[in-house]
Amino acid sequence: MELLEKLKWRYATKKMNGEKVPQDKIDRILEAARLAPTSSGLQPFEIFVVTNDAIKERIKPVAWNQSVVTQCSHLLVFAAWDTYTEDRINYMFDLTNELRGFKNEGWENYRKQLLKIYPKQDAEVNFNHAAKQAYIAFTTALTAAAFEEVDATPMEGFDADAVDAILGLREKGLRSSVLLPIGYRDASEDWLVDMVKVRKSKDDLVTIVD
Amino acid sequence: MELLEKLKWRYATKKMNGEKVPQDKIDRILEAARLAPTSSGLQPFEIFVVTNDAIKERIKPVAWNQSVVTQCSHLLVFAAWDTYTEDRINYMFDLTNELRGFKNEGWENYRKQLLKIYPKQDAEVNFNHAAKQAYIAFTTALTAAAFEEVDATPMEGFDADAVDAILGLREKGLRSSVLLPIGYRDASEDWLVDMVKVRKSKDDLVTIVD
Repeated sequence: MELLEKLKWRYATKKMNGEKVPQDKIDRILEAARLAPTSSGLQPFEIFVVTNDAIKERIKPVAWNQSVVTQCSHLLVFAAWDTYTEDRINYMFDLTNELRGFKNEGWENYRKQLLKIYPKQDAEVNFNHAAKQAYIAFTTALTAAAFEEVDATPMEGFDADAVDAILGLREKGLRSSVLLPIGYRDASEDWLVDMVKVRKSKDDLVTIVD
Repeated sequence: MELLEKLKWRYATKKMNGEKVPQDKIDRILEAARLAPTSSGLQPFEIFVVTNDAIKERIKPVAWNQSVVTQCSHLLVFAAWDTYTEDRINYMFDLTNELRGFKNEGWENYRKQLLKIYPKQDAEVNFNHAAKQAYIAFTTALTAAAFEEVDATPMEGFDADAVDAILGLREKGLRSSVLLPIGYRDASEDWLVDMVKVRKSKDDLVTIVD
């Protein structure tokens, strides 16, 4: 399967060459993230696409000075909802009714259920749940980048509060959860590019319950 | 791009027809999950593949009686590490040295850093982190299933403690974090199959910072 070849090709690129990724590839990577499924379809996150060099320079020191933050073409920041609110839940249920062109009793009951549960939960519990949904979109974007033969660096190593401040995320009710610089590998400078990909064996990872 | 077509084709299947998914497809879906990247390469999860009908029947009532739990061909359970331990961290670093055939000072310093931080953290914090890594593998499996034209149902709606008990996960230092029944849609019985896919618009999802 082609997918496996793409997954073998990709790696967590440590040096990029600054080359710009064409807009049509960026569009398809973002479209893949948009199509990713999420719990109850709420898509509880937003994606910030940083191309501004000055902003990248400010993010780099709060991301362990990882050079790909400034060497990348586009820096994707996946920012999850800080909590679930009634408005946010209603927005997605209303959008569903609008796009499908009808109201459905089962769906409306499901809305009521979520409205009863989520907004009352601790914000940190809700943020953790939203962040997992952001990871689904992030992973889909990462796979889409590999399909476009665009390199990417999954990045959890950053000061989330600092990135939130730089991008003004908290005021929008968002918190940065994971970064994805995308661009092109600088193969001659990247120590990781020719290393063997290390993964647990299938036997260590998978248990069949038959 | 072919990937976008696959992402449009897939949906959270609500009824499956019980047909078995061929082993070569299952192998490729699991291989995709194995190749998924994770934080520091730790792969802090295991995957349980339930094909046993009696076990599926026991899981169904603790998963809101969702019929795909028993109608599916294979029920994948992504179980994250309950915490990070020294042994678990050392295992992956030792495996890296073994597969790459050498020790590297920078890598060993990174090992020491993780050993200083992770095992001392609260187990719940560690589990939440591990669960996000499990989501990366889960999302990759979901995409791989779509590539194989195999249906799948991303499923968070279940009693994790009950699933842990049924599969004996806690004794293994694992906790179930997300389920993925895979199989084939029963198109004539599934209310969702012909519904419009609902997603936020690109403008609502993406902000360009240029």
